[in-house]
Amino acid sequence: MHLTGVRNRKTQTLPHTPWHRLRQAQKNKHNVDSRFGSVTFSITSLPVHLTVSPAAERLRYILGDDEDTMPTPTLFTEMDTLQQEDDELEWRESARWVKFEEKVEEGGERWSKPHVSTLSLHSLFELRTCLQTGTVLLDLEGYSLPQIIGQDKISFVLLRKHRHQTKKPIHRSLADLGKSGSGVSECSIFISPSIPTHTSRSMNDIADTPSTDQLKNKFMKKIPRDAEASNVLVGEVDFLEKPFVAFVRLSQATTLGGLTEVPVPTRFLFVLLEPPGKAKSYNEIGRAIATLMVDDLFSDVAYKARDREDLIAGIDEFLDEVIVLPPGEWDPKIRIEPPKKIPSADQRKSVFSLNELGQMNGTAGGGGPVSEDEEMFCGGLFLDIKRKLPWYLSDIYEGFHIQSISVVLFIYLGCITNAITFGGLLGDATDNYQGVMESFLGTALAGTVFCLFSGQPLIILSSMGPILIFEKLLYEFSKNNGIDYMELRLWIGIHSCVQCLFLVATDASYIIKYMTRFTEEGFSSLISFIFISDAIKKMVGTFKYYPINIDFKPDYVTAYKCECLAPDTSKSILGIEHVSFEMLNITALDWTQLSKKECVKYGGSLVGKSCKYVPDLALMSFILFFGTYTMTVTLKKFKFSRYFPTKLRKLISDFSIFMSIMTFVGLDMLIGLETPKLIVPTEFKPTRADRGWFVMPFGKNPWWVYLASSVPALLVTILIFMDQQISAVIVNRKENKLKKGCGYHLDLLWVGFLMVACSFMGLPWYVAATVISIAHIDSLKMESESSAPGEQPQFLGVREQRLTGILVFVLTGVSIFLAPILQFIPMPVLYGVFLYMGVASLSGIQFWDRIKLIMMPAKHQPDFSYLRQVPLRRVHLFTLVQIVCLAVLWILKSTFLAIIFPIMILGLMVIRKMLDMVFSQHDLAWLDDILPEKEKKKKEDEKKNTKKDKKKGKGGDDSEDVSVLVARLFKERHRLLGFK
Amino acid sequence: MHLTGVRNRKTQTLPHTPWHRLRQAQKNKHNVDSRFGSVTFSITSLPVHLTVSPAAERLRYILGDDEDTMPTPTLFTEMDTLQQEDDELEWRESARWVKFEEKVEEGGERWSKPHVSTLSLHSLFELRTCLQTGTVLLDLEGYSLPQIIGQDKISFVLLRKHRHQTKKPIHRSLADLGKSGSGVSECSIFISPSIPTHTSRSMNDIADTPSTDQLKNKFMKKIPRDAEASNVLVGEVDFLEKPFVAFVRLSQATTLGGLTEVPVPTRFLFVLLEPPGKAKSYNEIGRAIATLMVDDLFSDVAYKARDREDLIAGIDEFLDEVIVLPPGEWDPKIRIEPPKKIPSADQRKSVFSLNELGQMNGTAGGGGPVSEDEEMFCGGLFLDIKRKLPWYLSDIYEGFHIQSISVVLFIYLGCITNAITFGGLLGDATDNYQGVMESFLGTALAGTVFCLFSGQPLIILSSMGPILIFEKLLYEFSKNNGIDYMELRLWIGIHSCVQCLFLVATDASYIIKYMTRFTEEGFSSLISFIFISDAIKKMVGTFKYYPINIDFKPDYVTAYKCECLAPDTSKSILGIEHVSFEMLNITALDWTQLSKKECVKYGGSLVGKSCKYVPDLALMSFILFFGTYTMTVTLKKFKFSRYFPTKLRKLISDFSIFMSIMTFVGLDMLIGLETPKLIVPTEFKPTRADRGWFVMPFGKNPWWVYLASSVPALLVTILIFMDQQISAVIVNRKENKLKKGCGYHLDLLWVGFLMVACSFMGLPWYVAATVISIAHIDSLKMESESSAPGEQPQFLGVREQRLTGILVFVLTGVSIFLAPILQFIPMPVLYGVFLYMGVASLSGIQFWDRIKLIMMPAKHQPDFSYLRQVPLRRVHLFTLVQIVCLAVLWILKSTFLAIIFPIMILGLMVIRKMLDMVFSQHDLAWLDDILPEKEKKKKEDEKKNTKKDKKKGKGGDDSEDVSVLVARLFKERHRLLGFK
Repeated sequence: MHLTGVRNRKTQTLPHTPWHRLRQAQKNKHNVDSRFGSVTFSITSLPVHLTVSPAAERLRYILGDDEDTMPTPTLFTEMDTLQQEDDELEWRESARWVKFEEKVEEGGERWSKPHVSTLSLHSLFELRTCLQTGTVLLDLEGYSLPQIIGQDKISFVLLRKHRHQTKKPIHRSLADLGKSGSGVSECSIFISPSIPTHTSRSMNDIADTPSTDQLKNKFMKKIPRDAEASNVLVGEVDFLEKPFVAFVRLSQATTLGGLTEVPVPTRFLFVLLEPPGKAKSYNEIGRAIATLMVDDLFSDVAYKARDREDLIAGIDEFLDEVIVLPPGEWDPKIRIEPPKKIPSADQRKSVFSLNELGQMNGTAGGGGPVSEDEEMFCGGLFLDIKRKLPWYLSDIYEGFHIQSISVVLFIYLGCITNAITFGGLLGDATDNYQGVMESFLGTALAGTVFCLFSGQPLIILSSMGPILIFEKLLYEFSKNNGIDYMELRLWIGIHSCVQCLFLVATDASYIIKYMTRFTEEGFSSLISFIFISDAIKKMVGTFKYYPINIDFKPDYVTAYKCECLAPDTSKSILGIEHVSFEMLNITALDWTQLSKKECVKYGGSLVGKSCKYVPDLALMSFILFFGTYTMTVTLKKFKFSRYFPTKLRKLISDFSIFMSIMTFVGLDMLIGLETPKLIVPTEFKPTRADRGWFVMPFGKNPWWVYLASSVPALLVTILIFMDQQISAVIVNRKENKLKKGCGYHLDLLWVGFLMVACSFMGLPWYVAATVISIAHIDSLKMESESSAPGEQPQFLGVREQRLTGILVFVLTGVSIFLAPILQFIPMPVLYGVFLYMGVASLSGIQFWDRIKLIMMPAKHQPDFSYLRQVPLRRVHLFTLVQIVCLAVLWILKSTFLAIIFPIMILGLMVIRKMLDMVFSQHDLAWLDDILPEKEKKKKEDEKKNTKKDKKKGKGGDDSEDVSVLVARLFKERHRLLGFK
Repeated sequence: MHLTGVRNRKTQTLPHTPWHRLRQAQKNKHNVDSRFGSVTFSITSLPVHLTVSPAAERLRYILGDDEDTMPTPTLFTEMDTLQQEDDELEWRESARWVKFEEKVEEGGERWSKPHVSTLSLHSLFELRTCLQTGTVLLDLEGYSLPQIIGQDKISFVLLRKHRHQTKKPIHRSLADLGKSGSGVSECSIFISPSIPTHTSRSMNDIADTPSTDQLKNKFMKKIPRDAEASNVLVGEVDFLEKPFVAFVRLSQATTLGGLTEVPVPTRFLFVLLEPPGKAKSYNEIGRAIATLMVDDLFSDVAYKARDREDLIAGIDEFLDEVIVLPPGEWDPKIRIEPPKKIPSADQRKSVFSLNELGQMNGTAGGGGPVSEDEEMFCGGLFLDIKRKLPWYLSDIYEGFHIQSISVVLFIYLGCITNAITFGGLLGDATDNYQGVMESFLGTALAGTVFCLFSGQPLIILSSMGPILIFEKLLYEFSKNNGIDYMELRLWIGIHSCVQCLFLVATDASYIIKYMTRFTEEGFSSLISFIFISDAIKKMVGTFKYYPINIDFKPDYVTAYKCECLAPDTSKSILGIEHVSFEMLNITALDWTQLSKKECVKYGGSLVGKSCKYVPDLALMSFILFFGTYTMTVTLKKFKFSRYFPTKLRKLISDFSIFMSIMTFVGLDMLIGLETPKLIVPTEFKPTRADRGWFVMPFGKNPWWVYLASSVPALLVTILIFMDQQISAVIVNRKENKLKKGCGYHLDLLWVGFLMVACSFMGLPWYVAATVISIAHIDSLKMESESSAPGEQPQFLGVREQRLTGILVFVLTGVSIFLAPILQFIPMPVLYGVFLYMGVASLSGIQFWDRIKLIMMPAKHQPDFSYLRQVPLRRVHLFTLVQIVCLAVLWILKSTFLAIIFPIMILGLMVIRKMLDMVFSQHDLAWLDDILPEKEKKKKEDEKKNTKKDKKKGKGGDDSEDVSVLVARLFKERHRLLGFK
């Protein structure tokens, strides 16, 4: 039990030396059986930051020099322990690692959930000692392995059969049910006969043919294709007096029969056989080496190690990086779930290879580099086309995916609901010059064309509130002044298009650089609130449209009726009793048979307590509305539940809206009440009979109108420009990880073209719809299939394609023929979908997160990165400013100023500019983005700071952070917006 | 950078030596500035399991010997770092520890959430070196501290003012808003003038008067009363060439002015001043010592250490126990939330004090020891009384708590709803011999008495379904055979009571030993399902009671009416036109004015399309029903949300049912529809006028009836016994952590007594109601107020008292006077509460968890301990057996066999017995409890196994586990049931 500071420095790397001889040598040399009793070592290599320890130097030597060699394969590690089964020894799989540990539950006969391997420091040190004193065989030839396993008890033990834990339990007879705990499935093969004869039968005999069990193992899917296996074998044997340790690296990865549960060739073998008594402690050593083998850095070391010392340096580096939890604050029995994100091993590796450091600052993802100084006429437009054209083919074929079906149905329903609502209102506003039919046709036409040719086909076009108000004012103006509305409108469209083209040519979309998160989120929150409030307003409207008789007493049902009485004229006839007796009879009969509408139509009066009321429909509508919303939310969340396999859950989540709509359409049909239904036009003709499908540009108005219309056109242009570009900014947000780049100029070009086209056909005008576009993007999000067990699926980006959009609008176009199906959908169900869209587009907005923070006590707040950096009251102040802005906008929107609503967004941008005076750039960098003018100044500041820092050699953390952050943020933003 | 294995073994513990002199000595001795550059040490003391290392021996010596000394105080640790603020140095608080770490967010100026301190192994080793080479002053006299701080730069630095992070931000002027990131509040005091003069002003000057800021600090509440502080001071100073390290333990804890943020006297000081350049690394050393100081074991060591070596032994012990996370599997930046449960430090300590080991197997909690072999007449009863009597006083005063109000309201509403439903049904069954009035009176009487005197006052008495069926059959039998029902019933009651007393006297409640989890959960699930199905049935009933006119077309409202037509007799009168003209007029007028009921009453016929239908009420009822349920569930969950302070959340959660009821009663009043309301009797008289409040035992029936009634009484007795005892078993479940013990015999005694009393007064009979009792217990659950930040509140047990029960039943009694209030409560709201009760009583049942498991893929299943031990298919098989049992019971319950329903529970017990043949005792021990007969056999097995194990020295893990587990489980169960 004595402590020695002596360290065994002999390098024992003797490749191609027969194993048993080495073992013999080892036996002779270490003849103290207390070697494992007290752990004796001295850690000499934990490097202090920025200084190089000998271990680090070693690693730098073996890892850093070979730039051009292949990356090392991923290692799959399996740990088997020696078990006694009916007086026969066998190796039983006890744990495995792809990246995280999966343990075989002792009694449960199943795999545990993947978890972070919690090791004891003790076992790591013991492992270190093992490698220092045990056998290390590097680059052993695979085929020589069978030869070197001699006539020896150890080789007998090593050749015991292997039992693996499979996911599926073996089918067993009912007679078996009475027995317990013995159901480990056998999917192993016999490597050697079960009688301990001195056999020279080699592992290699069966090496080339993996067993069918191995091949059938579904776990293979979780292991990368190029993976190699490392096998850890730990066992107690009674014939040994001291532990036998061997670390073997084969020169070629070889399939060693049933050694591994999957047909992955083995590259490493770690064998630890020990005298009985301390199985637990030895198991821990096995877990330690297994964990090390799957460590990115150590596995590199293991592949490239030249000798024992290299391995030990690898352990030392590992030890230097480990994270230590104090025993009093954590229970080692708790299995730690794998984290959402793991720091890349590259950073650890980069310390050892100097030439990798430069690559850290490269650009990641994005729509290709944009030359920053290109200035020419239509420069932006050409760049947009240049950027988007190469993707065009993939824009089509990437749309073929099951997810698309759900997306199309969801967005389609949103679009036609919008088209119907908007068409109805527009019809009211323009005396049906533009009605539901025009709305449908316009949506279909504009949408299809835009999705086919635009720069950002994920944007969904739709009609907007401000346009509606504009049309209303314009129609009233024309009517009052005797000007032909349709012709005037056509000319406004033409002027507007020209103005748009001018904006495209001059690259005016540059302005959106000033739309920071503040503006974006303010705008999209406002639109979301409008969506939500509209959905609720419509629901409340149902209660007004179908009033409930609150005073109804079931017992006095006899008192409720509604009779249609003939108009007063009949009363006068009543005076002449005799003459009109027959006539009265007949008339009376007629009147009572009339429906409510007919009665009113023929001038009759409705008398009775129940005339004003409609039973059940309002409440039923509410149930449909609320039910659709709630079910959609619940099903969306279902993805995170524990039930059912992941794929099924994802499907349910993807189709949540469709399933909710179907359910409540079904419920509505089942109950059979006459709830308000979706009615689409069924005939292809203009809503108003006196207009055709084409508006003539000349003839009806005086010549000056053609010129004067350029003034209102300017307002329309600004409206459209702001609305279009801000929605596009939101869609192109960097959080969405779009890969195919953006096309602000191209988008605007097509919006302008479509405007003229719509004006000629007398259809409404269309711009990007914020909420529906967000819904479109959200439902197209992709996640990685998790690879290693326990690894979290990562958000990969959005399925960027044109197919879903095109399909949505083609479907909208043919909705006229779908009327027999669509008429079953109750409107309240669609309002529920609207409510969901509004609420869903709020989530994921930082502004909304910050509003929630206000209601949370500091200690419960989530660990947002900006909360670590910005004082809470500054965060709240920023939120408050946004809330006030929104409130003001909301009030303005409710007045006639709604027509210039998108222009008010400019106001938001001005306020954002003013915030520069209230908040420091540091705070703004965390809460918002930095405005571009600051760039130059900041860059200078940055330089100054850096100099100052270097001179001072300390402190100045904050200012440095800011400038770097600012520069980084601005660069990122610049690149993403795709501007020169 | 060279490595030395040499270890400095000189003990430098020189108490009462002036600090600066020591520092000087240190300076001279260690003159290598690279001392920190490479960490050099040899860990020699990591003890292997069960062997004693020198470090462990040291610890055993200092920790193990003093049995009678006081336990060491809890340590609060604060870490301050030296910061430059406007060219002036100051100490700024950077983190603190009560148990977990709370960090001052750099930019956020706030405390982070408490988290597990993740240390780097590196910093721990560096700390070890610091303690090996630095100054260690143990038991320094507090008052001498000012004197020993001499005229020296270091003392100047140490005396800089201290800034602490307070939770509340200081109010600052608006002019301040423009500045950023500088808002650290000042709640410190100046220890020395800000100009670096050579001052001898001591810390002690202000030591006795903690500043008001300190006293006002609310954080004080989180620190135990007896706590002492340890202060860690880490800073960079440019006048030092090598680090200055000092670990000081004061002989008496002293308040050192503004050193600590809270007025806690300081006992330990750790100072680390170092030359500039490696602030981060030194901060990590500070965090390491701070974490060590709050470690239970190390703080003991720190208090009792005799010299430097003891401290180092403490670190070594700590290192040996740490948990290591591999760098590739975890991101050190993730703050690990404190675990729900931390292993007790006692186990770690017990290794070092031998005489504590024996205490590990003591009994915890429970209703006191029950002598196992006491056998006498009424033995169980006397034991029950003996056990419960001492608690009687606390049973009353422990009821005074805000939680009780909510509980009383909740359970009261449950009880009266039950009383009304049951009373109505019973009235129908017995021609109102027992009606709603009797039900109320009986509930009040039986409940109050039971809660006052029973053994388990948490049980709520109520009427039960099987009793209802029995009464119905009995009434029909009496009516058909001319026997007086009330008298017969009285005699059955008397016989049943006698039989109950016999059961009490013979300690028959012993049988419930055979009610394992299998039976318990089967029974309570079934009752819960009945509750849920009843609630839904009643809701569906509303749709039948208020039928919706599905064919209603709003436009044809004119076609809907309901007229009351006079009966045919008037038709004949109509024949005599002349005579009856006036009469007809009058009659006709009358008929149309009649209400539906009146019309039917006077023989009129209702004609019209709307007669059969009632608008809106059904749907409104559904909204109320579903809304109440959903809101209750949502509010209950609100406890786990992040919003609002914990106390408010808890209040909302506690009052969730009350708030939901109020909300939907309010909504109902607001809308004003005539939904079905709760109507309670308002006059105190028997429902049937021809019966009084007392039933005479003799006179109406022949004599043999008095004797013969003992036969049906037997059925009633079994009914009552089973129902009562199984509910009691569920209430006394060990998961509920009841401390005042149980009283099965006493309970049964009072149920018997109450039966006679109720029979004499002609009131229904009462037994324990499973679902309401579970709801009672659940809403009385207590959780610990979390003490140290980050520690999870623990479930402490149930507020065991008689007050809530008594109040519920007194309120039930006076409900007659509460009728004006109660009449506002719609029945659907109460059905919603019923649904909630049923669903809530299902949760927390293992059976229910296992049903959910069936739908989960193995990898998503929660980490239940039985899943680690029992193969999944065995678990599923067990669940399946239970499901089949329940299905059979459910079918039987729906037939006339419902009357013997509780007896069927015996069937469950038989099936459970049979499961012994299908499942191994190991599996059953994990999934269920072990049946008592097995005890002896198992004990023998256990002995055998132990012997075998010892002989073999290995293996046999499973069998040992089982027998120990079986023995433990049985012991536990035995004790909890309180039987001899």
